[in-house]
Amino acid sequence: MSKRYKKEFDFSYALGTAVVFELMTRRPESARCVYVHPDATKGDALDRLVALCNSRGVQVKYETKIFNVVSQKENCFVIGEFEKSDGTLSSENSHIVLVNPMTGGNVGTVMRTALGFGFSDVALIAPCADPFAPDVVRSSMGAIFSLNVHVFSSFGQYRDAYPLHGLYPFMLDASTPIGEIRFTPPYSLVLGNEAHGLPKEFASYGQCVRIPSTDKIDSFNLSVAAAIGMYEATRRKQQSK
Amino acid sequence: MSKRYKKEFDFSYALGTAVVFELMTRRPESARCVYVHPDATKGDALDRLVALCNSRGVQVKYETKIFNVVSQKENCFVIGEFEKSDGTLSSENSHIVLVNPMTGGNVGTVMRTALGFGFSDVALIAPCADPFAPDVVRSSMGAIFSLNVHVFSSFGQYRDAYPLHGLYPFMLDASTPIGEIRFTPPYSLVLGNEAHGLPKEFASYGQCVRIPSTDKIDSFNLSVAAAIGMYEATRRKQQSK
Repeated sequence: MSKRYKKEFDFSYALGTAVVFELMTRRPESARCVYVHPDATKGDALDRLVALCNSRGVQVKYETKIFNVVSQKENCFVIGEFEKSDGTLSSENSHIVLVNPMTGGNVGTVMRTALGFGFSDVALIAPCADPFAPDVVRSSMGAIFSLNVHVFSSFGQYRDAYPLHGLYPFMLDASTPIGEIRFTPPYSLVLGNEAHGLPKEFASYGQCVRIPSTDKIDSFNLSVAAAIGMYEATRRKQQSK
Repeated sequence: MSKRYKKEFDFSYALGTAVVFELMTRRPESARCVYVHPDATKGDALDRLVALCNSRGVQVKYETKIFNVVSQKENCFVIGEFEKSDGTLSSENSHIVLVNPMTGGNVGTVMRTALGFGFSDVALIAPCADPFAPDVVRSSMGAIFSLNVHVFSSFGQYRDAYPLHGLYPFMLDASTPIGEIRFTPPYSLVLGNEAHGLPKEFASYGQCVRIPSTDKIDSFNLSVAAAIGMYEATRRKQQSK
């Protein structure tokens, strides 16, 4: 019973061997089954994945139909079906907070970057791109299976849940450049929508941050701005190690 | 005579008002004409764009057909047709060099980021995504019209043209973290393909750079890695201003 993904589903799909590996190693308990295309390249990688599925009691199904239904990429030969899990964010750890991100690729890339810089918690404020959409999971390269990701209905709801985090809203007209900011954990790096940035009222919510740039661009891409923020917030700690 | 874009064309399309504005302000001499959809929102922005076209002698055409042929986005109501120009890179300025980038979105985002961090020159080593494809131009947000962008047939060809630039290949297994690197201008930040990174021989080409990360990801997204590189290479200069 192959179904094209819909946001309302309580399950989604991990596309491609690398992403399914992340699913099976980081969150195997949420895997329902793994589909393998008959044309999948035989070899070590596939053998290891199938062995992993067997050891975890996850059924491997050899069929083609699901690939035509779910995947638009021609080079996808493995699909993992998994149950969505709405992660609870840690109260101790710092957070990445995206307010109304609408581009799935950005959400996926931010998750991947967050995991790379040692963050474990990502908050999304609705309306926003669906973090569990197959293309978003894929652009996260499976990072979503190693992170706590939670969608909040409003920024107020997020703030009520984590009132002690220091807020660092990234705003184009903030006066303090990021290099002069002291990020005191636990903190929340807060970034706005791709087209509009953060609403003005965020200027009073905490220590606003500006990423210095030439006046030749209006702004950086959301996933680039988030990456600079994460890099700068963590690099001084790393260098003192 | 509306034509779906092909790589072989000597012209391409800028999609959307913001990107066409960049075309008309930064590189009006390469604009052939501007198409306006009859459903385009009337107002100041459109009036200013039309006035700009008139002052530059660029014909404005009101028609719908080109939009169905060229644009897959439903919210695109202005298209600029422009002649491609293969820019010559500056010998004095530092360069961003992407070796075999295959994802157009990455190439566009890197161009936008480069412009934001004050770079003016981007080299692409073939095979690579077409920097003039309409979706790449769009993801650059028009930055391509403010940059010198040149496609080289090989890294050797690039190196022969700019033998004095200090090379900084970004490699996953480099020993020196980026925070300890001194970037001496004019330099070339060299980044590899999305899936494979740089070939091993690049390790001997200059000062290799590693972006510190957790072991939970294989690598950062290409446009994220390039952004961290550009940020770090320019921030110390900025802070001493």
